[in-house]
Amino acid sequence: MDLNADLGEGFGQWTLGDDKALLNIVTSANIACGYHAGDADTMRETCALAASAGVAVGAHVGYRDLAGFGRRFIDVAPDTLTNEVLAQLGALATFARAAGTRVSYVKPHGALYNTLVRHEAQADAVVDAVRLFDPTLAVLGPPGAVWLKRASVAGLRVWHEAFADRAYTAAGTLVPRGEPGAVLRDPAEIAARCVQLATEGWVRSVSGRPVRIQADSLCVHGDTPGAVEIARVVRAALEAAGVAVGRVESPLRHTRQAV
Amino acid sequence: MDLNADLGEGFGQWTLGDDKALLNIVTSANIACGYHAGDADTMRETCALAASAGVAVGAHVGYRDLAGFGRRFIDVAPDTLTNEVLAQLGALATFARAAGTRVSYVKPHGALYNTLVRHEAQADAVVDAVRLFDPTLAVLGPPGAVWLKRASVAGLRVWHEAFADRAYTAAGTLVPRGEPGAVLRDPAEIAARCVQLATEGWVRSVSGRPVRIQADSLCVHGDTPGAVEIARVVRAALEAAGVAVGRVESPLRHTRQAV
Amino acid sequence: MDLNADLGEGFGQWTLGDDKALLNIVTSANIACGYHAGDADTMRETCALAASAGVAVGAHVGYRDLAGFGRRFIDVAPDTLTNEVLAQLGALATFARAAGTRVSYVKPHGALYNTLVRHEAQADAVVDAVRLFDPTLAVLGPPGAVWLKRASVAGLRVWHEAFADRAYTAAGTLVPRGEPGAVLRDPAEIAARCVQLATEGWVRSVSGRPVRIQADSLCVHGDTPGAVEIARVVRAALEAAGVAVGRVESPLRHTRQAV
Amino acid sequence: MDLNADLGEGFGQWTLGDDKALLNIVTSANIACGYHAGDADTMRETCALAASAGVAVGAHVGYRDLAGFGRRFIDVAPDTLTNEVLAQLGALATFARAAGTRVSYVKPHGALYNTLVRHEAQADAVVDAVRLFDPTLAVLGPPGAVWLKRASVAGLRVWHEAFADRAYTAAGTLVPRGEPGAVLRDPAEIAARCVQLATEGWVRSVSGRPVRIQADSLCVHGDTPGAVEIARVVRAALEAAGVAVGRVESPLRHTRQAV
Repeated sequence: MDLNADLGEGFGQWTLGDDKALLNIVTSANIACGYHAGDADTMRETCALAASAGVAVGAHVGYRDLAGFGRRFIDVAPDTLTNEVLAQLGALATFARAAGTRVSYVKPHGALYNTLVRHEAQADAVVDAVRLFDPTLAVLGPPGAVWLKRASVAGLRVWHEAFADRAYTAAGTLVPRGEPGAVLRDPAEIAARCVQLATEGWVRSVSGRPVRIQADSLCVHGDTPGAVEIARVVRAALEAAGVAVGRVESPLRHTRQAV
Repeated sequence: MDLNADLGEGFGQWTLGDDKALLNIVTSANIACGYHAGDADTMRETCALAASAGVAVGAHVGYRDLAGFGRRFIDVAPDTLTNEVLAQLGALATFARAAGTRVSYVKPHGALYNTLVRHEAQADAVVDAVRLFDPTLAVLGPPGAVWLKRASVAGLRVWHEAFADRAYTAAGTLVPRGEPGAVLRDPAEIAARCVQLATEGWVRSVSGRPVRIQADSLCVHGDTPGAVEIARVVRAALEAAGVAVGRVESPLRHTRQAV
Repeated sequence: MDLNADLGEGFGQWTLGDDKALLNIVTSANIACGYHAGDADTMRETCALAASAGVAVGAHVGYRDLAGFGRRFIDVAPDTLTNEVLAQLGALATFARAAGTRVSYVKPHGALYNTLVRHEAQADAVVDAVRLFDPTLAVLGPPGAVWLKRASVAGLRVWHEAFADRAYTAAGTLVPRGEPGAVLRDPAEIAARCVQLATEGWVRSVSGRPVRIQADSLCVHGDTPGAVEIARVVRAALEAAGVAVGRVESPLRHTRQAV
Repeated sequence: MDLNADLGEGFGQWTLGDDKALLNIVTSANIACGYHAGDADTMRETCALAASAGVAVGAHVGYRDLAGFGRRFIDVAPDTLTNEVLAQLGALATFARAAGTRVSYVKPHGALYNTLVRHEAQADAVVDAVRLFDPTLAVLGPPGAVWLKRASVAGLRVWHEAFADRAYTAAGTLVPRGEPGAVLRDPAEIAARCVQLATEGWVRSVSGRPVRIQADSLCVHGDTPGAVEIARVVRAALEAAGVAVGRVESPLRHTRQAV
């Protein structure tokens, strides 16, 4: 089981989350690429930290919206979105290479993550960008997302993720934030669910009925001290249960990511 | 003799200059990389146009200053400048590759161009970025610039440029804009000077004395209809004089520009 | 009848449209406020030009999206939108005052203009901003827009506009760009329609049936040489038909627009 | 004696410092105006917090440089700087008025603060902006700064500040950061110096010799938990010593700040 988290989400003078603590816990780092967060210094340093921690580098691509942290839907033209994702991949790949590593996968951020679950034109746009940049990259997202289906058809490797601290409906979708019980807080309960998901492939939904969740990776957070502690407890519980925690293996041969 | 010009200097809805006309005249295109101008769509399209015209792609890197078009000195920390140049190179190389070509050289823009003539810390910062990104890239700038000396010591290939429409002092430096006679306007006079420079290696300075200018490339402009016409006349005059107009040859083997 | 046009839509080194030509034709200038276009220099200069031409200054407020020129819907939170409109009004009012004039009205730009026709939460957000900033400001938009109804309920003065060069459906809505006949090109035809609209209150819709359009202001464009010529012809035709072309009169006493 | 601190220095999702804690301690809030930090939401909320705490609102104007947090010198043209300061004042004044208060003074931020100590053209540019916006505003800066001399000649009220936690040379200038002893850390020592400065008008310089410092306001910081604690101790010590801590009184009649 892979553990992934969002990192490198500062900008200029501003920081967010405890990247160094998380890099001792997770096996995959979703690194901001400058459009919703992440300036050149932040990208360079976060790639270096990930490389020295042996953590896989993922491109956390988002809408061009620093003021909104990529959390607002933008009705951007698909061609423009393709090019904006290419620009983000090119920048991050450069810093990954400077750190002696490479970009392994792509995970959309914030509003783009949510939009790609259903928005076909933007889904195709992002798939086009990934395929054009490096068809050996994996794509990471929630089971059932339109963009992952398109990615699969396009021949990209698809990884599915589940959220360690979020409740699921009986249909296998996330309970929307704001609804009661949407976000779990108790580290022990979260860890137990993660173990069950990793070993048995299901969790109990908010309705009480079990729901199957097939996940290659578990998403944990690091934006509060409590979140880092939860991530630590989840990893420890997985390992205690005999689950191998590690990067998703890449069966395909890697190709170069730029000229 | 190579002919270079600044291209892709639009942003979003805004455009600048007549890129398509220039691409029929020049042999090297200095393409904006998103920091002083150039969004993802512009970079993608300009690289594609350059590729189909058989024109070499250069990275026109600048300060992070869209509001000032990169024309104001910014006292940015050298480490940050290195990383900002890397981000620009990574983005442009991605679009060059998508267009089936590659970045061949780096030319700084605007205030960064002027600053690197003397500012040692920023000069080293840009050289570090180029070397880290791709040590087979050439660097293009004015004879005597500190950053070209550092680039040469670092093992980078150095190309020198002269300005077709600018007057020179007897010391071989540009007459500052604003001084009388700094900018030449007469196409025939400009063309004659360019031919003399290309065939004999000197031009007459403002003091009347000849001054030696060793240039691999001539910089022409395209931001006014008159400028495009001057560029056309310059090229025609060079060819009429038997000067081979073409891209600077790259003796070194190319290496890949990203992971 | 008032004539309005978008002005001050440059940014930094980039310009758009022929502001000086338009200011000799229109009676109201929708001036960009820095969020979709317009930097501090542009706002200052455009307000000064409008003031010396005796043209009313309107705040052309938009989404925070320079890269997209405010033409993409952004799902911004209503409270944030209120504050972003306040910031734009405050900046433009300062430049209007420096030019010896004042902001008279507010017209949303681009995607915000279209969104406010139906999006109730964003409509309320903009109305709140205008009311908070200066309840004597008028609001300018298309007949039937949700935001104008809310503005009216809130006690703001409402002005309606029609588009000189756009076709209307029998229901009185614009024929969407991209559909055949959506944009009119013939200056004489456009002028004749504008005269009919101004003197009789109706135009012929694309279906052939007449449709009533009650407008206080006609919107003309200036982003191409042809557009400026159309605006000139429209004004001349209105005046030849005896229509008084001038700013919409403001019956309310003006209050100060900042502390 | 007035106590001032920088507030509202977040941007979008990012925050900086503990504004609420500081607003219980200081009497003047230097609020970021959107150019180096501070979006519309942040400006609105910080003005509201300052108003309800009875703290004076100051415009903390800076270079247009979110990526650099306004900490890098930018060689911006004086006319542009005037206009950029006007835009910042107009935006902040709007939010101050929405909160039922007003902008009382202007304090430059970061690199602009340091530049205005000596750079005559930029100093004049900022003075022009303040005078044009509201000649009853005070300006706050270090004794001896060129821009304060120009402000005084221009008829603006000038307030001087000293830094609670910084060492001074025998000439009365700050010991540059990076030199040994430049920044004081011990709350008790800092508080004692502040009391001495407030009651006797001098502090001991790094050379050991006393140096006269005439200050209307003391600048404290809030970007670390330790900094907030120092600010608290300074205020308590001043009050214990019988120093009246309060806003600088404004002898001039206030005029409106926009149309």
